[in-house]
Amino acid sequence: MNIREIKNPKFLKKMNEEELYRLSYDIREFLIDEISKTGGHLSSNLGVVELTIMLHKVFNFPKDKIIFDVSHQAYTHKILTGRANEFDTLRKKGGLSGFQKRSESIYDNYEAGHSSTSLSAALGFAIARDMNKEDYSVIALIGDGSIGNGLCYEALNQIGELSTPFIIILNDNNMSISENVGAFRNHLDKIRSKNEYLKVKNKTKEILNKVPIIGKPLSNTLKKIKKSIKKLYVNDGFIFEELGIDYYGPINGHDYKELELYLKMAKKPVLIHVITEKGKGYKFSENDKTGTWHGVGAFDKDTGKMLSTSTGISFSEIISNALIKFMTKDMVVITPAMAKGACLTKLALMYPKNFIDVGIAEEHALLLANGLSLSGKIPFVSIYSSFLQRGVDEIIHDIARMNSHVILGIDRCGIVGEDGETHQGVFDLTFLLPIPNMIIATPKDGVEAVSLLKTAINTNSPFAVRYSKSKLDYTPSEEEILPIGSWKSLTKGVDATLITYGDFVIESYTIVEKLKKDNIHIELINARFQKPIDTKMWDKITKKNKPIFVYEESMRVGSLGSYLKSITDSKVIIYAILDEFVPQGTRSECLLDLGLDANTIYENIKRELRSNKNA
Amino acid sequence: MNIREIKNPKFLKKMNEEELYRLSYDIREFLIDEISKTGGHLSSNLGVVELTIMLHKVFNFPKDKIIFDVSHQAYTHKILTGRANEFDTLRKKGGLSGFQKRSESIYDNYEAGHSSTSLSAALGFAIARDMNKEDYSVIALIGDGSIGNGLCYEALNQIGELSTPFIIILNDNNMSISENVGAFRNHLDKIRSKNEYLKVKNKTKEILNKVPIIGKPLSNTLKKIKKSIKKLYVNDGFIFEELGIDYYGPINGHDYKELELYLKMAKKPVLIHVITEKGKGYKFSENDKTGTWHGVGAFDKDTGKMLSTSTGISFSEIISNALIKFMTKDMVVITPAMAKGACLTKLALMYPKNFIDVGIAEEHALLLANGLSLSGKIPFVSIYSSFLQRGVDEIIHDIARMNSHVILGIDRCGIVGEDGETHQGVFDLTFLLPIPNMIIATPKDGVEAVSLLKTAINTNSPFAVRYSKSKLDYTPSEEEILPIGSWKSLTKGVDATLITYGDFVIESYTIVEKLKKDNIHIELINARFQKPIDTKMWDKITKKNKPIFVYEESMRVGSLGSYLKSITDSKVIIYAILDEFVPQGTRSECLLDLGLDANTIYENIKRELRSNKNA
Repeated sequence: MNIREIKNPKFLKKMNEEELYRLSYDIREFLIDEISKTGGHLSSNLGVVELTIMLHKVFNFPKDKIIFDVSHQAYTHKILTGRANEFDTLRKKGGLSGFQKRSESIYDNYEAGHSSTSLSAALGFAIARDMNKEDYSVIALIGDGSIGNGLCYEALNQIGELSTPFIIILNDNNMSISENVGAFRNHLDKIRSKNEYLKVKNKTKEILNKVPIIGKPLSNTLKKIKKSIKKLYVNDGFIFEELGIDYYGPINGHDYKELELYLKMAKKPVLIHVITEKGKGYKFSENDKTGTWHGVGAFDKDTGKMLSTSTGISFSEIISNALIKFMTKDMVVITPAMAKGACLTKLALMYPKNFIDVGIAEEHALLLANGLSLSGKIPFVSIYSSFLQRGVDEIIHDIARMNSHVILGIDRCGIVGEDGETHQGVFDLTFLLPIPNMIIATPKDGVEAVSLLKTAINTNSPFAVRYSKSKLDYTPSEEEILPIGSWKSLTKGVDATLITYGDFVIESYTIVEKLKKDNIHIELINARFQKPIDTKMWDKITKKNKPIFVYEESMRVGSLGSYLKSITDSKVIIYAILDEFVPQGTRSECLLDLGLDANTIYENIKRELRSNKNA
Repeated sequence: MNIREIKNPKFLKKMNEEELYRLSYDIREFLIDEISKTGGHLSSNLGVVELTIMLHKVFNFPKDKIIFDVSHQAYTHKILTGRANEFDTLRKKGGLSGFQKRSESIYDNYEAGHSSTSLSAALGFAIARDMNKEDYSVIALIGDGSIGNGLCYEALNQIGELSTPFIIILNDNNMSISENVGAFRNHLDKIRSKNEYLKVKNKTKEILNKVPIIGKPLSNTLKKIKKSIKKLYVNDGFIFEELGIDYYGPINGHDYKELELYLKMAKKPVLIHVITEKGKGYKFSENDKTGTWHGVGAFDKDTGKMLSTSTGISFSEIISNALIKFMTKDMVVITPAMAKGACLTKLALMYPKNFIDVGIAEEHALLLANGLSLSGKIPFVSIYSSFLQRGVDEIIHDIARMNSHVILGIDRCGIVGEDGETHQGVFDLTFLLPIPNMIIATPKDGVEAVSLLKTAINTNSPFAVRYSKSKLDYTPSEEEILPIGSWKSLTKGVDATLITYGDFVIESYTIVEKLKKDNIHIELINARFQKPIDTKMWDKITKKNKPIFVYEESMRVGSLGSYLKSITDSKVIIYAILDEFVPQGTRSECLLDLGLDANTIYENIKRELRSNKNA
């Protein structure tokens, strides 16, 4: 069928099994085709095609509610709810979001982006339903990586006390983003692999054969067979059962008959353990063990070759290579499930004893690092800026308060582009700056990144090195230990000072050059340390008695500029992100919309200095 | 024995069972006596006397490492490590901390204050030990309330993969602070209560009788009986076993023989489930079901009467009463285990269907609230300022981004006094201010608190009402809905403006009066909304062209004053907390040390205005 013509999921109700399988084929073709052009989350979406279709066939959304965890696997849901036509705008400015988005559709009840929020949020929906004495189903669809996060445990702990229907679908593809870790994973593996599984599967087939043709109401038959199914599947003592949540599984997530049977059965709080194949239906993603096909840019559909648009090396890779270079027996590199994204797989292979992937567990990662540090180790926690929001208390209450030598490698700072609001790294500086004992630095380029890392390793304090998602030209050179707090003056100029750091240093060179043509000469300062600041240089700057501009890729409230302005009576003008969430778009589009592109800043500074002169 | 003469725990090694019981009696007497004078955590400490003694008898601290979760139950540990003599300074300025503190003793390896950090931190110690190929025990002692937090699950998930010794002692007194909740609690209850428990206990007694006199090495016998013990105790499928952690228990936490047997047995990652009686040995605390005796001020030892030093009513109580007054079928009050502290027990009894205690699960509490809000409910999350640090991502990524009508009742803002660094509510404003969509307000008194609550209920936005731990004079009056962002001018004055909010409004009246006597007249502004600000009034203030003083009980970096200064070229002088953690002491002592007491601010403003005049 023509996928683009789908307006809503009602047509599914009448489809027979054969038609459903045909539909999943068509949707997969559509997804591979579209994502190969726009980029996006491929593997996770290919894995849940049948599951999503059957959910829409069995339930009546939006009366029933479904919350996708993270929600990067909601593409089939988007297609079935009439959004196929917009897929050419996927993750583009003003276009379709890569996640669930309430403003896009009445079928989207919640919005995520970060992992492990679905169970708690869905429980809120279920409790509200019960308070209103209403009758509809609430479903949380969550992956086996996400469910390992502590938030889910807190939610499960309360869900187990609920007596009304609440359906958790555990989408188990045995990967989170790259391969999954942890004892809980082992537990799931045990279930998947044990001999009984196959035995049980065969018995299920027998039972399923007694079930009338798929698509017809099953409820009468269901009551009769439910007991026997239950007995077949439930492992006494399985974790979820211990928490008071009925457990069914594992079942085949690509088998419509099985899916329908179990989805119709859910009455009390129940967890349905569905085994799916991540990347199913596309040979390259099917064989992917490292997560290469999890989130992709545009690629050639036939060859599987990525069509890279940006050249150069990422900060992640520069830092990772430097970690390898600086590795000692006392260093420990920790990642919360971002080994692939943060380019740490090579390091992990070379130094397996000095590398820990804790899974999606940011808070634990930080405390583990703190314990290691207090035992004389030098931990480096690689963590994305937006995910560090999960660890604020661990930084304040543990790491900074005990003044531990923990290095935070904060990746994806600043504008991240296509992932939009949830992933922008624009808050971390604002919550780190007020924390005592913290040293905070942002390199302007690869060489400075490596020097800052070296400096962090040699400084017995909590030390954050922040870097962006950008790809750079990078020629390695000898790293140096930088004096803590030191800034660097990059250009001379008597008319004003422009203070900036990170990626904006390059934009600022452009600004300075353009101003020079207008006969305006400004001093450009690389404020590579945001805390502590270079008080000597700052004194010199304020004594010039000329306007000071601060140009930042951060929320304005609580930014470095706000801090600088709070300690001087000199004229300070701050260019940063005003009080709004930053939506998706390319980095340049976002900066332009925020008025933070080089040209706008150039115009602003010029106008400001001219009005200043006239005043 | 004379408790005060204990220098270190070595003397325990030679003690026999009778002497040990005598010692626990003496320690309990000492604790009740001391805490009745100074106040402190009573019940939790009375519960772990035998357990702590036996830990120090069996292990060799500080070579072995012990991390107390929260660590308010470490008083016996403090006594045994030579700190009994300092108990009269407990929780006082410059005195003994109420928690573990590395600067106090080489026996304190970690510091806490917030719950559920011990497992992750201890795992860091264990991994460091293994990397160093060293040989010592690492022990985390954690309560049944704390272990319900998601952080612990994240840690357990990794501990289960460890193959080296790691001892978790689950101190189960069936209460966290007040009564415990959640499916996990039910799971523990099931174990405690099942018939087999008694049967098993009797068999253990038989085995224990075969064990040589306590105090002698048990290792030979141990090997022989370990297997049979294991078979007796382990419940197949128990959650910890499923996660790969050996489970022993439940055992009697007041029985030295049992404790010793199990503590000596721990080789692989193991969880020892110890049943203790919270408040044991003092009749009032033994019978406490609500947590009244958890943390206490000074009290009369004989009558159990609290010697209250402060009069008046707390903000918590005022807010709670107002919630009762405003209760509708759509309101839901949520607390993460602080029903008692936040004075919500009355409300919980009156409106059980509109009240949810999620246990120590701050992040889940916030997301649950968000789900409820998106379903049309009006959730009020009561949460302490310092614990809200755990929920920053949930506020940014979920509540604020979806612009949900969730009310945060942020309790214990500002200086909290005796609990010290870990509990000061001095960061929340700095991390909330940069978040778009947030409305943030702090009442100056009880009447304004109720009005702000009413306003929050009537405003369809994320809304934080912040209030301190202070007790107030309060005469209820008709509440009013306040215009969002509105400030209030409290005194007239042409020489300068003093902007403040919360408890500092009262201090400021004193300052204004004192200045008046010096013929300095300043306008006092109650900036009850910190976000959004009152732009109209702010314009008027800046147009006066007079110095503006901002006086805040918050970190200075990222404070309201820093924000105000960042949007004006007027002279703004900020009095707030500089870049340091604020140690324990009474509120007035802390303010004096920080230079934020009324008198210091008065002197500063006077000096500032005089030098300004002269300039």
